[in-house]
Amino acid sequence: MDDVEPGPDLEPAGQGVVDLLGVLAYGQLSAYFRLSADAAAAPSLPVSLALAGQATGGFERYRRIEARLRDLGIDPTHAMEPFVAVLRDFHARTEPADWLEGLVKAYVGDSIAADFNRELASFADERTRSLVTDVLDTTEEAEVVLAALRDAIAADPHEADRLALWGRRLVGEAMASAQRVALERDDLAELLVGGPGRPGADLAEIGRMLVRITEAHQERMGRLGFTP
Amino acid sequence: MDDVEPGPDLEPAGQGVVDLLGVLAYGQLSAYFRLSADAAAAPSLPVSLALAGQATGGFERYRRIEARLRDLGIDPTHAMEPFVAVLRDFHARTEPADWLEGLVKAYVGDSIAADFNRELASFADERTRSLVTDVLDTTEEAEVVLAALRDAIAADPHEADRLALWGRRLVGEAMASAQRVALERDDLAELLVGGPGRPGADLAEIGRMLVRITEAHQERMGRLGFTP
Repeated sequence: MDDVEPGPDLEPAGQGVVDLLGVLAYGQLSAYFRLSADAAAAPSLPVSLALAGQATGGFERYRRIEARLRDLGIDPTHAMEPFVAVLRDFHARTEPADWLEGLVKAYVGDSIAADFNRELASFADERTRSLVTDVLDTTEEAEVVLAALRDAIAADPHEADRLALWGRRLVGEAMASAQRVALERDDLAELLVGGPGRPGADLAEIGRMLVRITEAHQERMGRLGFTP
Repeated sequence: MDDVEPGPDLEPAGQGVVDLLGVLAYGQLSAYFRLSADAAAAPSLPVSLALAGQATGGFERYRRIEARLRDLGIDPTHAMEPFVAVLRDFHARTEPADWLEGLVKAYVGDSIAADFNRELASFADERTRSLVTDVLDTTEEAEVVLAALRDAIAADPHEADRLALWGRRLVGEAMASAQRVALERDDLAELLVGGPGRPGADLAEIGRMLVRITEAHQERMGRLGFTP
């Protein structure tokens, strides 16, 4: 409760939930910006249109989270601001060298972020959990990016090694950013590990969570034909 | 009728209308891409969000034109392709040097394009005309860009001269691009000036049209506090 005024609908464990919605909102907004740029740079109109459809879908998802924050009496900008720096740093450190690296980043990075947020949401109240689960159900859109990537790799198989390496780099940077968020935002960390009078995950459970996220990542790399 | 298969709902003067919808669709798509980039580069979250809302609105407008093209039995990609080169050239020649120039371009350039398209649509069939008029009624969104620009100029009045010059450059480039489109696309030009068995504008009417477009541009420059 250190920096936002709780609204009438906010539960006692509120700041963790506000943090979760804030990081999720800014994440969706960033995803929209990057994917729009990828769409603009796409080599053909059909691919450009498919990616633009996914990008604007990200903005729609942002808007749904924004609406929930407003319902809670929270200024969305205020909720997002603590996460702007860490996400900007992540994007600055993982600036794609070309269009294909951008696509891998959209596919791999957004999926890992979604997995993290879903795990966190499982410790939040029912309404937040169902919003997060619903908002992050972007299987259909991920297929668009996956299809564009597969086509590009099929057209130039030599790209695969470079992109697989890039995928590994992205997952490392994503994990480091998640750790930084956990260190900087006590309330969000508390949502996960519990606090006074509130149960949370123990170390074994956090371990299993990281295993689940890593395995899902490896499965995605496999779907691209990469050795994880 | 040189390069698309007319659908069942397409009238005899069809290719001109298809061209109009094609250039309009690609124009909205380009506007969406550029405005998303402007939104991503905005100096604050609230301005970024306002611009992102306008950008995604452009994509929604694109989708409505796309739907109309499909109704006419036309492949949207096919309808847009003749205009990709000329619009890309326009954007390459008017690459904004910074965020403020990007905003002026969004405000001035998109408005001039809208004025041109509305004038052309007045010679099209009723359904096309009402779609174009409806899609281009973006007064509300232009206010978002205008407000962001005014704030920026108020914060640094020395920018005004440079941006006014930039606005004049943009209108010149826009007029040159419109002329190139008219020269390259006979059917679109014919929508305006008429063809066998179809009345159109005479030279005096085209003159008045250019006066209307120029006056509207000068009024917009005036609203920014610029001498046109």
